[in-house]
Amino acid sequence: MFDQIKIVLVGITHPGNIGAAARAMKTMGLSQLALVQPKQFPCAEATARATGADDVLAHAQLFDNFTASIQDCHLILGTSARQRSIAWPVLTPRACAEQTLTIPHSKVAIIFGREHSGLTNQELDQCHAMVQIPTSQSFGSLNVAAAVQIIAYELRMKSEELQVTPEGNLKKNSLVIPASAAAMTQFYQHLEQTLIDIGFLDPLKPRRLMRRLHRLFNRTQLIDSEVNILRGILTAAQEQCRRHKP
Amino acid sequence: MFDQIKIVLVGITHPGNIGAAARAMKTMGLSQLALVQPKQFPCAEATARATGADDVLAHAQLFDNFTASIQDCHLILGTSARQRSIAWPVLTPRACAEQTLTIPHSKVAIIFGREHSGLTNQELDQCHAMVQIPTSQSFGSLNVAAAVQIIAYELRMKSEELQVTPEGNLKKNSLVIPASAAAMTQFYQHLEQTLIDIGFLDPLKPRRLMRRLHRLFNRTQLIDSEVNILRGILTAAQEQCRRHKP
Repeated sequence: MFDQIKIVLVGITHPGNIGAAARAMKTMGLSQLALVQPKQFPCAEATARATGADDVLAHAQLFDNFTASIQDCHLILGTSARQRSIAWPVLTPRACAEQTLTIPHSKVAIIFGREHSGLTNQELDQCHAMVQIPTSQSFGSLNVAAAVQIIAYELRMKSEELQVTPEGNLKKNSLVIPASAAAMTQFYQHLEQTLIDIGFLDPLKPRRLMRRLHRLFNRTQLIDSEVNILRGILTAAQEQCRRHKP
Repeated sequence: MFDQIKIVLVGITHPGNIGAAARAMKTMGLSQLALVQPKQFPCAEATARATGADDVLAHAQLFDNFTASIQDCHLILGTSARQRSIAWPVLTPRACAEQTLTIPHSKVAIIFGREHSGLTNQELDQCHAMVQIPTSQSFGSLNVAAAVQIIAYELRMKSEELQVTPEGNLKKNSLVIPASAAAMTQFYQHLEQTLIDIGFLDPLKPRRLMRRLHRLFNRTQLIDSEVNILRGILTAAQEQCRRHKP
């Protein structure tokens, strides 16, 4: 069940943190690690801090951009320490584990950002929801490997809980596997083009509109049949424009 | 409430772990640290890894034996990675938090042992119960600071649960109050009319399409500004149709 869960570390500068994160993952039974633009990797310090979890490091996938790292995933959850002003759905680590483990047969990415600045808004835009680890209000400086440890711990707690409950629990949500990131990318391109065609979006003006629409539809976790309906609507709107053009 | 909780680290050999444990504590709001026979303390590496939690290190109590470190405590909980043959009562980290925070006005010690060997049986004999963090059966090598992080996280989760007040809950999410039912009704009417206008919905055919769109947008919990954006898009699509009608 944990093979479907990918931990994605974005822009980590201290290799020790990568090793510590790998160890944190392995203690809880996770093995799928992806690294986006690590400053230094592979690295002796990472291996040293992994202390026995070097197999996780050896199998880590390397990516040079964030979008590429999540293409095969159906549910993308971004961790964040800060309160953001914009309305992402916010999950606790416990709710994150619940969401992750009750969607069977689909790949989930849980994203951790840079040591000092976390994830960018552009990266969070590609997430379905934000996971916020509760911290002290006066000192929220959680180490990235410690954050991985907490999330992985909650996944383990939840999986142990699920193993003692009837299978019915898992079947419940089998119809609501979210669309893949690739399908969502195509949907957003179609949406953007349609908004241009109907004159709602000026491609020369800033893209805050698309960011807001990304956030809106990402947090909905569209399933394939819904993406098809929405793209059908977009096509119908585009045809209206074309039909009447001289 | 956290002033009554003391984290006791016994026989730590790597000073970096002491610093990381202090940071883990402070992120979750804990401040009382006791060190029993640390190999090296104070130490620059500990301070470096504490990254801003150096006040926790500065106020740490030093002891040369375990018994002395717990004299002022009323509840003593020892963490252990291994299954012990002797029948201590075993708590999960969550149950540990529950026990710790529901015993008012008494000092609690949570004990973490040596990096390689943990706590001795003689030390565990002085504990009221054992706390076991669930780990993978094939790799249970949890870093001591990571263990502190998990225990501290569960304490924070539990304390927030105990403090939950209705106002607090509402304030936290004040930016994401969903649009009113009235606004949603108007939105769905506007959506339906637009789908008819662009020829995507045949009003004489059954309404399963609208039900699916209801479900999709209802679970998103649109906020007012998002309803405005979507209605703006609908209006733009309708204008395209009207402009070109004879």
